[in-house]
Amino acid sequence: MTRGGRTTSPDAEVARSVDRATTRTLEDVRDADGLTTSRVQHTQLPCGLRIVTEEMAGARSAALGVLVDVGSRDESDETHGASHFLEHLLFKGTGRRTALDISIAFDAVGGEFNAFTAKEYTCFHAIVLADDLPMAIDAFGDMVTDPLLTSEDVDAEREVILDEIAMHADDPEDVAHNLMAEAAWGAGTSLGRPIAGTVGSIRAMEPDTIRRFHRDHYRPESMVIAAAGAVDHASVVAQVEAAFAGNDFLLGTRPPRAPRPSRPALPVTPGERRVSRPLEQVSVVLAHEGLDRYDERRFALGVLGTALGGGTSSRLFQEVRERRGLAYGVYSFLGHYADSGLAGVAVGCLPERVEETLVTVREELGKVASEGITGAELARGKSQLIGGLVLGLEDPGSRMMRIGRAELNHGEVLGIDEITERVNAVSGEDVRRVAAHVFEGPEVLAVVGPDGA
Amino acid sequence: MTRGGRTTSPDAEVARSVDRATTRTLEDVRDADGLTTSRVQHTQLPCGLRIVTEEMAGARSAALGVLVDVGSRDESDETHGASHFLEHLLFKGTGRRTALDISIAFDAVGGEFNAFTAKEYTCFHAIVLADDLPMAIDAFGDMVTDPLLTSEDVDAEREVILDEIAMHADDPEDVAHNLMAEAAWGAGTSLGRPIAGTVGSIRAMEPDTIRRFHRDHYRPESMVIAAAGAVDHASVVAQVEAAFAGNDFLLGTRPPRAPRPSRPALPVTPGERRVSRPLEQVSVVLAHEGLDRYDERRFALGVLGTALGGGTSSRLFQEVRERRGLAYGVYSFLGHYADSGLAGVAVGCLPERVEETLVTVREELGKVASEGITGAELARGKSQLIGGLVLGLEDPGSRMMRIGRAELNHGEVLGIDEITERVNAVSGEDVRRVAAHVFEGPEVLAVVGPDGA
Repeated sequence: MTRGGRTTSPDAEVARSVDRATTRTLEDVRDADGLTTSRVQHTQLPCGLRIVTEEMAGARSAALGVLVDVGSRDESDETHGASHFLEHLLFKGTGRRTALDISIAFDAVGGEFNAFTAKEYTCFHAIVLADDLPMAIDAFGDMVTDPLLTSEDVDAEREVILDEIAMHADDPEDVAHNLMAEAAWGAGTSLGRPIAGTVGSIRAMEPDTIRRFHRDHYRPESMVIAAAGAVDHASVVAQVEAAFAGNDFLLGTRPPRAPRPSRPALPVTPGERRVSRPLEQVSVVLAHEGLDRYDERRFALGVLGTALGGGTSSRLFQEVRERRGLAYGVYSFLGHYADSGLAGVAVGCLPERVEETLVTVREELGKVASEGITGAELARGKSQLIGGLVLGLEDPGSRMMRIGRAELNHGEVLGIDEITERVNAVSGEDVRRVAAHVFEGPEVLAVVGPDGA
Repeated sequence: MTRGGRTTSPDAEVARSVDRATTRTLEDVRDADGLTTSRVQHTQLPCGLRIVTEEMAGARSAALGVLVDVGSRDESDETHGASHFLEHLLFKGTGRRTALDISIAFDAVGGEFNAFTAKEYTCFHAIVLADDLPMAIDAFGDMVTDPLLTSEDVDAEREVILDEIAMHADDPEDVAHNLMAEAAWGAGTSLGRPIAGTVGSIRAMEPDTIRRFHRDHYRPESMVIAAAGAVDHASVVAQVEAAFAGNDFLLGTRPPRAPRPSRPALPVTPGERRVSRPLEQVSVVLAHEGLDRYDERRFALGVLGTALGGGTSSRLFQEVRERRGLAYGVYSFLGHYADSGLAGVAVGCLPERVEETLVTVREELGKVASEGITGAELARGKSQLIGGLVLGLEDPGSRMMRIGRAELNHGEVLGIDEITERVNAVSGEDVRRVAAHVFEGPEVLAVVGPDGA
């Protein structure tokens, strides 16, 4: 793979029908013969809606995503669970389509389509053959701009969401990570509450609350449309302009979105939570306050996390599973949010091994905090991060998520070569310093398992 | 996408260093300009080892698989869990590599590598950048032909497997599907027993039992090496010949593998099993005897399964979730084995809705058995199956699994256009007939949930 000819051209390459739409090429990757193998382009419509695409040579399918800058952390006690509830309801029908019409449209072409809600954003996504992309854009545009949100649908979907909450309650790892969020940021805080809501908040949710939530948050300026694979940027832009035109969505005739509730940095509070469940295994999540997603040290922390628990050669896997046989699985994880973050370790083990496992994990975290990692670990961590990044981008779906999230969260899409450079620039001292910063801070512990574990 | 120039050439295109290796091109897909976009080739070495590759134009990564024709159904009471135990042990070191060497080799290049064990086969798989494929082939060859299998490693890995069994015991869906296998074929039968073994069989497993199991079953004639992506067939064959040469593996100097225990067709017995667990949700699996993997009616059954429960427009999703709000998830599944099969429906719901859900599911199965599906459902089921097949083959990993499994299970790799033809040839009457055959047979039911569900 040869890269070259990276260009950033501020001039609009695409003639736009809407005044002052601006289009830029963000990345242009060429092979050894100078042929473009992938190109990332960006258009912002006058209303603020952003469209990013990645044209991939040779792809036959197209991935489409609608990313909305709203999630559980934008909710209050009254609206707790509204982002996720709304995500469900958008599939229930529009002025032009029944729920069944929407399902049939995608199933009939073998496409995948689904959605998920996170703490800070909501994403609708689809993968279809190239010829079916206009249909997918049209359906998503319709769902976003003209959902019915009837009271009957709210009541029917309420039951489905209660089932979903029950399903998560039966998954020990889900329970442990929710418990960790609650322990780290506090129950009822914007980052501490569970994304799906609670049985109580879902039972109490009024249709009007959800309708207002949609009106307040589904705005062009808080939305990114991402497409990757067998796509043509200019066509995608034109199709989006047609498909999202319903209810004057793109005209900016509605008052601008209310200023987002300020997000004062949420401190992570040390502590410990245990939930008793009659399980065979214990799920343990141990974490420290990490970095927010804008922190420049996140590349050093990424290398550290990989060296610590990113694969079977990692320190923790070697110490916990290979040397001591304490657990089947152990891995490190990083969570980055707008104003906070977590850096932690998750492990599943038998109840009688919890204490020895915790001693082992803490010892290794202490060691990297005081001594950093070895030169070999540093080199391996970097090449593992970079190799994984490249290997993880062979399909349109992962490319679409990469550019969509980067645009929504950062307002810029870093090129693969730029990320590679930043990772390669990480020094051993950078890693030691960020390890000390993170792992010498107070610890948060969440444990789910049988009594006494 | 234009297909053309499909050729099957019986002549060896590749000069081989080993006598009488035969190489054939199985599929050659060209684009509108006549350029080959993918080519499937097949080589059989004199010892019986088969190598299938799919060269994909434009891919930068390569997927590698070693598929071995052995799984839990080849085990006895004494060896129950040996296939899976052995799969773990192959990563623990060889004459030339420690376990850590193996892990480092893949982690250092950002590659993924892992393995899984099924009822009828075991698969080791890796995804690496093109330049790292020789390393991956070398490592897998070493692991397969020269594993250490020390008694110390058996004891250490025993604990890891017991942890894994505990983890599966905490997953309601895993428990429900294991319970279904036991209910359908009987506890302790070749298809009825759990793949990982039981706590008792794993505790009792002797190192010599595992060593003998390796010697008996890891034979060139029972193995397929599959590679897809940025690969060159002739190079892969040459690398496999070098990497798998250890311990005279390719020379056929060891006595041929003992004849496989005959597999008399295993009848599915009707019945019901319930396991009580203190869960929020109930996992229900309802199944009928399906088709073995050679049955020509499997294409009709595939269309039927898709129309019944293959997407959100499917009958069961519409009836169970959308119309009645009975469950969060409901889907149909098909299992095909050498001499048996299952066709069923899995659903997760709240305890108070189990009975109504079962009534609804049974009613729909009864309807398709007597009336078949509508013309619209037939057309949609076909295009959904075919579209999903094409969309699911955009990355090297899924191509590798497709050709590897087809060669191991069928001894032939059907081209995508051939599968498309067979699916398109399914008539409404074919579907009705297979629906009656399957769903009018006796029912097997597995339920995991709180008391009284």
